[in-house]
Amino acid sequence: MTPAHPAPVVIDCDPGVDDAIALLLALASPELEVRGVTTVAGNVPLADVNRNAARVLDLAGAPAGLPLTSGLGGPIGRARHAHDAPVHGEGGLGGVRLPESRRQFRDTHAVDLLAEQALAEPGALTLVAIGPLSNVAMLLRRHPDAGTALREIVVMGGAAFVQGNITPAAEFNFFADPEAARVVLESGLVVRIVGLDVTHVATFPTEATEQLASLPGAAGVAGTMLGDYGRRERAISGLRGTPVHDALAVAAVSHSHLLGWESGQATVECAGTVTDGALVADLLTQDRTRATRVARTVDSQGFASLLNERLTGYAQSASRP
Amino acid sequence: MTPAHPAPVVIDCDPGVDDAIALLLALASPELEVRGVTTVAGNVPLADVNRNAARVLDLAGAPAGLPLTSGLGGPIGRARHAHDAPVHGEGGLGGVRLPESRRQFRDTHAVDLLAEQALAEPGALTLVAIGPLSNVAMLLRRHPDAGTALREIVVMGGAAFVQGNITPAAEFNFFADPEAARVVLESGLVVRIVGLDVTHVATFPTEATEQLASLPGAAGVAGTMLGDYGRRERAISGLRGTPVHDALAVAAVSHSHLLGWESGQATVECAGTVTDGALVADLLTQDRTRATRVARTVDSQGFASLLNERLTGYAQSASRP
Amino acid sequence: MTPAHPAPVVIDCDPGVDDAIALLLALASPELEVRGVTTVAGNVPLADVNRNAARVLDLAGAPAGLPLTSGLGGPIGRARHAHDAPVHGEGGLGGVRLPESRRQFRDTHAVDLLAEQALAEPGALTLVAIGPLSNVAMLLRRHPDAGTALREIVVMGGAAFVQGNITPAAEFNFFADPEAARVVLESGLVVRIVGLDVTHVATFPTEATEQLASLPGAAGVAGTMLGDYGRRERAISGLRGTPVHDALAVAAVSHSHLLGWESGQATVECAGTVTDGALVADLLTQDRTRATRVARTVDSQGFASLLNERLTGYAQSASRP
Amino acid sequence: MTPAHPAPVVIDCDPGVDDAIALLLALASPELEVRGVTTVAGNVPLADVNRNAARVLDLAGAPAGLPLTSGLGGPIGRARHAHDAPVHGEGGLGGVRLPESRRQFRDTHAVDLLAEQALAEPGALTLVAIGPLSNVAMLLRRHPDAGTALREIVVMGGAAFVQGNITPAAEFNFFADPEAARVVLESGLVVRIVGLDVTHVATFPTEATEQLASLPGAAGVAGTMLGDYGRRERAISGLRGTPVHDALAVAAVSHSHLLGWESGQATVECAGTVTDGALVADLLTQDRTRATRVARTVDSQGFASLLNERLTGYAQSASRP
Ligand SMILES: [Ca+2]
Ligand SMILES: [Ca+2]
Ligand SMILES: [Ca+2]
Ligand SMILES: [Ca+2]
Repeated sequence: MTPAHPAPVVIDCDPGVDDAIALLLALASPELEVRGVTTVAGNVPLADVNRNAARVLDLAGAPAGLPLTSGLGGPIGRARHAHDAPVHGEGGLGGVRLPESRRQFRDTHAVDLLAEQALAEPGALTLVAIGPLSNVAMLLRRHPDAGTALREIVVMGGAAFVQGNITPAAEFNFFADPEAARVVLESGLVVRIVGLDVTHVATFPTEATEQLASLPGAAGVAGTMLGDYGRRERAISGLRGTPVHDALAVAAVSHSHLLGWESGQATVECAGTVTDGALVADLLTQDRTRATRVARTVDSQGFASLLNERLTGYAQSASRP
Repeated sequence: MTPAHPAPVVIDCDPGVDDAIALLLALASPELEVRGVTTVAGNVPLADVNRNAARVLDLAGAPAGLPLTSGLGGPIGRARHAHDAPVHGEGGLGGVRLPESRRQFRDTHAVDLLAEQALAEPGALTLVAIGPLSNVAMLLRRHPDAGTALREIVVMGGAAFVQGNITPAAEFNFFADPEAARVVLESGLVVRIVGLDVTHVATFPTEATEQLASLPGAAGVAGTMLGDYGRRERAISGLRGTPVHDALAVAAVSHSHLLGWESGQATVECAGTVTDGALVADLLTQDRTRATRVARTVDSQGFASLLNERLTGYAQSASRP
Repeated sequence: MTPAHPAPVVIDCDPGVDDAIALLLALASPELEVRGVTTVAGNVPLADVNRNAARVLDLAGAPAGLPLTSGLGGPIGRARHAHDAPVHGEGGLGGVRLPESRRQFRDTHAVDLLAEQALAEPGALTLVAIGPLSNVAMLLRRHPDAGTALREIVVMGGAAFVQGNITPAAEFNFFADPEAARVVLESGLVVRIVGLDVTHVATFPTEATEQLASLPGAAGVAGTMLGDYGRRERAISGLRGTPVHDALAVAAVSHSHLLGWESGQATVECAGTVTDGALVADLLTQDRTRATRVARTVDSQGFASLLNERLTGYAQSASRP
Repeated sequence: MTPAHPAPVVIDCDPGVDDAIALLLALASPELEVRGVTTVAGNVPLADVNRNAARVLDLAGAPAGLPLTSGLGGPIGRARHAHDAPVHGEGGLGGVRLPESRRQFRDTHAVDLLAEQALAEPGALTLVAIGPLSNVAMLLRRHPDAGTALREIVVMGGAAFVQGNITPAAEFNFFADPEAARVVLESGLVVRIVGLDVTHVATFPTEATEQLASLPGAAGVAGTMLGDYGRRERAISGLRGTPVHDALAVAAVSHSHLLGWESGQATVECAGTVTDGALVADLLTQDRTRATRVARTVDSQGFASLLNERLTGYAQSASRP
C-alpha cells in the first residue's frame, strides 16, 4: 500500500556498500518518493561513486528518468581527499561487480539540481545526505534560498557520544569534509543527525545477511555486498552484525519513530590535532532554537525487520517472470 | 576493620566541593592510607584552594602531621586561568564557611613532595589527581623517575562519550590545563580515568544529601555543601541527584570493582576551535600497550551506599564526648 | 595608445575604497580588457558591495554592457562573517555618496560567470581577485575545468613577511575566508600574490591624494575616497601615505615589472589560535613546481606615477564638454 | 680591559654548534659574567647536549667550579621530541670530537639552579636562552618569584618576518617546544627576541671561518665546527656565510647596540596546521606594556668583527706556553 502522500526526497550519496543498501531501501519504500540522486566523492573517488550509483539504480530497477547527477569530487575547503575504500571492498560495492549501466547523468551539476528540486516545491523536499556534506554545503552557499526551501536535511554522519570509525574522534563522512559539515550544522536549518551513536547499534544480523545472499536478484546482491562489508567492518570495530549507516538515515525519514531524538545544537571541529572532523553536539544548550536533532537511541529490531522486508522484496520482483 | 595493607595514596586536589567530599571519603577509608595532600589551582584560584584544603583537613580530623603542600597556580603551557567558581559557591565550598586553620603547608613544592613520596617506596604509591593535571604533568617532566615509580595515577577528568560540563566537548579539569592532561595521558604510565561518563551517572541522591545535612559535625557540613553544589549543578546539567566527581575517583582506588573499565589509549585535544580540552579515547586501538583504562560503567547504588556510610561516620566521631 | 593585445581580465571585488580605485585603474588601463566584474562579501556586506560596485562602474564610465554579477555573501567553510567596514568609512567608499546606479546585475551567479568567461577562451583570462577568495575557491571546486582554463589568478591578499592588518598574523582578505584562500593557493594553478609585503610599501603619497581631490569628476572622487581611507589606515598602521592594496594587484597584471617576484609554494592557516588566516609562503621549497609567485619588492614611485596618471586621466574625460 | 660591572648571565643551551660558539663568545666576553650553564634537549637529545656542554666548557677553559646542570629532556606540554641533529653534524658539534670531560654536573635541576641564581641577586641576572624554552617556562611556573627577579630574558628563537628554518612558518627552538615559548612570551616579563630576522642576516663570513679553522686551540675548533655547520645550513637555506644564531643572542646582551629593536607583544602559535611553533609579533599594538622587544636589524659587520676577535682570542691563550 502506497501512503497517500509519500515524502519527496533527494538522496546525496557516495556508494559505497551502505549507500547502495540505502538506495535499495529508499526505492522500495512506498513512504518515500525519490525525486533524484546526486553523487559526491567519499567512500571512493567520484568516478567510482558515479559508476556505482548508476549500476545500483539499475539493480533497484529505478526508472530511467530518475534524475541522476554528479557533484563535487572532494571537500569544499581543503585539498585532502580522504577515501574509505578498503572497508567497502574492491570497486566500493563489497567486491560485487554489477553490469555496466547505460543510465545517463544529467548535465546539471548536483548542487544546481538540488537547488532546482528544493525550489520546485518549497517546504516539501527532504534532502537525505549519506556521503560527505560537500554538495550540501555548497548548495547552502551557492543557493541560500534553496536551503531555506528544504523541509529538512537528514544526515548520516558524526559520532556524538561514541568512538569514531575513521579516527577515535571522527566518523568518516564528517572527517572527509569537516568544513562542509560545519556549514550545514551551523546553518540554522532543520537538520537531523543519524550518526554512529545509532548506526553502530542498529546493525543488521549476520544470519539475515546470509539469508538475503541466498535470494535471487537485487536481494541476493544486497546480501552479498552486506556480507563482505560486514566482515571487513567487524575486523576493525568489533561490532556484532553489519552496520548499514546510510540505510538507517533513509529509515529516519520513512520511519522516524524507530529512532529516539534529542534536540540542541551541533557543529564540527575543523582545527583539532586529534579531533579534526569530530561532531560536537550540545544537547544541554539553553538556546531555544535547537534546530538540530541527534538520534540517540534506535529500535534495532524494528529497523532490521524493516530493512530485511524491503530488501527481500527485491527477490520477488526478480523472480517475477 | 582496617585492611591489612591499606593502599598508600597522595591526593592532588583543588577544593572545590567535590574535592572536599573526596578528601572526607579518603580520610574515612581504612582501605586507603593518605600520605599527603597537594594542591593546584582549578575550581577556584590557588589561594582559595589552599585555604579550603587546610580547613577541610581540619574538618576531617586529619592528623596535623599529614603532609600538605601547595602546587601550581595555573596551567603549564598557557596563560589562561579557567576557574569554575560559580558552581562551587562563594569561597568554593558550597557557601559553607569553615573555621580558619592553623595547619602548616610544607615548604616543599607540591611537585617535589609528589616526587619524594613516589620515590620513597617505588611501585607503591597511587596518585589520585582530582584537579587540573598541572602538578602531575610537571612531576612527570621534572622528575621522570618519580613518575615511573608510581603504582598508578587515578584521574578525575574528561568526558569520553558524554557531553562535557565546561564546554560541550570538555570536562572542567582537562579544559583547565589541556597540555597537562595530554602529557599525563600520553606518558605511557598506567592511568585510570574517572570521567563524566560515570560521575554523571553515579550521582548522590538528594534525600541522602538532606539526611546527611541534618547530622552533626563533618557529616552535616558535607551534606550542606553537597546540597548547595547539587542545586547549582542540576540547574545547568539537568542531572538527578548531586555529582560527586572527585569522590568517585577516590572510590575507584578503594573499591575499583564499583566501576567497569575498558582499556586503550587516550589523549587530550589542545588545539581545537570547539574541542579544546576534550578527552579522546581510543578503546578499539590495535596497540597492545593499552596503558589507559577508562571507567565506562558504575554501580551507582554501591557507590552511594559507600559514600553515605563513610560520610555518616563523621557524625559519630563528632558526637563522641 | 592601446596595446595591440590588451590582457583580458575579470575582476572579483568587494568595494571598499581600494577596490574602487582598482576598478578605476583597470578601466583606465589600455593594457587591460575588463571582461567582467564579480562581487563578493568582504570589506562590507554583499548588499553594500553590490551597490558600491555598480556606482563605481558608473563613475568610471564603464560600458553598460560590461558583465556585472553578484557572488557569495560569506566564506565557503565557516559561519563567521568578518567585515572591515570601519576603515572604509560609512557605506564602504570613504564616506563618499555616489549617485544611484541603474546598472543591471546579470542573473548568472558570479561563480558561473567566471567559469563562462574562463572557458570562452582557454588560457587567455586573468582573474584578478581583490576581495576574499570565496568566489574563486567555489569556482575551482564547482567548475574545475574553468580553473584550469585561466591564464593565471592574481590575488590581493596575505602578509607573508610583514605584520597583518586584521590580526598580527593575518591580512583581511585571507582572514575573511581562510579556507577559500587555502583552496586557491593549494590548487596547483598559477597564482600571483600581491600582499601587504608590497602594498604597505607602495603607498600613494598624501600630496598626490590631495591634488587628485581637487580635480573634477571621477579623479576628484578618487582623491576624496583615498584621503578619507588614508587617514583611517594611518591611524591604525602608522604607514606613510595611503595603501591602495587592490590597485597594486591590477598593476601587477598591466605592469608586472613594477614588482619583484619570488616563486615557491604557499598555503593559508585555517586552524591556528593566533594565526587563523595567515599566509604561509615557502620560497625555499625544493619542490620544482613553484606555481605560486609572491611579490617581495615594488617600485613604489613607478606605481604611484602610474596610478596618479591613470586617475588624473578621469579629470580630463570629466571636463570634456 | 674588563668593564667595571660585567653583566651576570646564566646561559640555557642545547649544544649544538651555534650554542658552542655562543658559549665560547660569552666566556671570552669581559662584558659578561657567566654564572652558570644549564642544558635542555633541543638540537640533539639531552644526553648528547650534556656531553657537548661539558666538553665545550673545557674547550673554552671555563673554571671547573662554573655551575653546570642538566634540565628538561623534552617539551613541557607534548610528547613530540623534535631534534635538529642533521644540520649540527654527527654528535651535534659539526662532526668535531672533543676530548671527554671530567666536569661535574650539579645535582640541582636546571630549573632550580636558575631560580637560585635569579633570587640570589634580584634584578641583576640576565637569562640567555638559546635552546628550546622548556627550562625557562618551567622556571616561570615552578618558581614564579624567580622569574620576576630576572633582569631580563634574551631568547634566541622565532622567525617574526622571515621564513622559518624547521617549517616555512617556524624556527627550530620555538617549534621544539611551542607551549614553553608561549608561556615565556606571554609572561609579561621583559623578553628580548633574537630570531632568524637577524641571525639569517648577520652570518659569519666563509673566509673568516676558514681563517679561524687554521688557528690553534679552541679558535681552530670553532672554525672547524662553523665550517661544517655552514656547509650544511647553506645547502638548505641558500644563505651566504654561516648563521651563528645563538652567538648573536649572547652579543645582544654584551653589545645590544649591534641590533635594532622594536617593542610590542608576542606569542607563539601552538595549534596551527601549518604554523605550529610560529612566532607572532605585534609591533603595532596599542597596548603600552610592550614587554617584548624584537630584533629587526643588525650590524652584521660589527657582529662578525666582534665574534671573530673573541674567537681568535682563543688561539692566543692556546699558543701560550
Ligand atoms: Ca555513504
Ligand atoms: Ca576537583
Ligand atoms: Ca578588496
Ligand atoms: Ca641552541
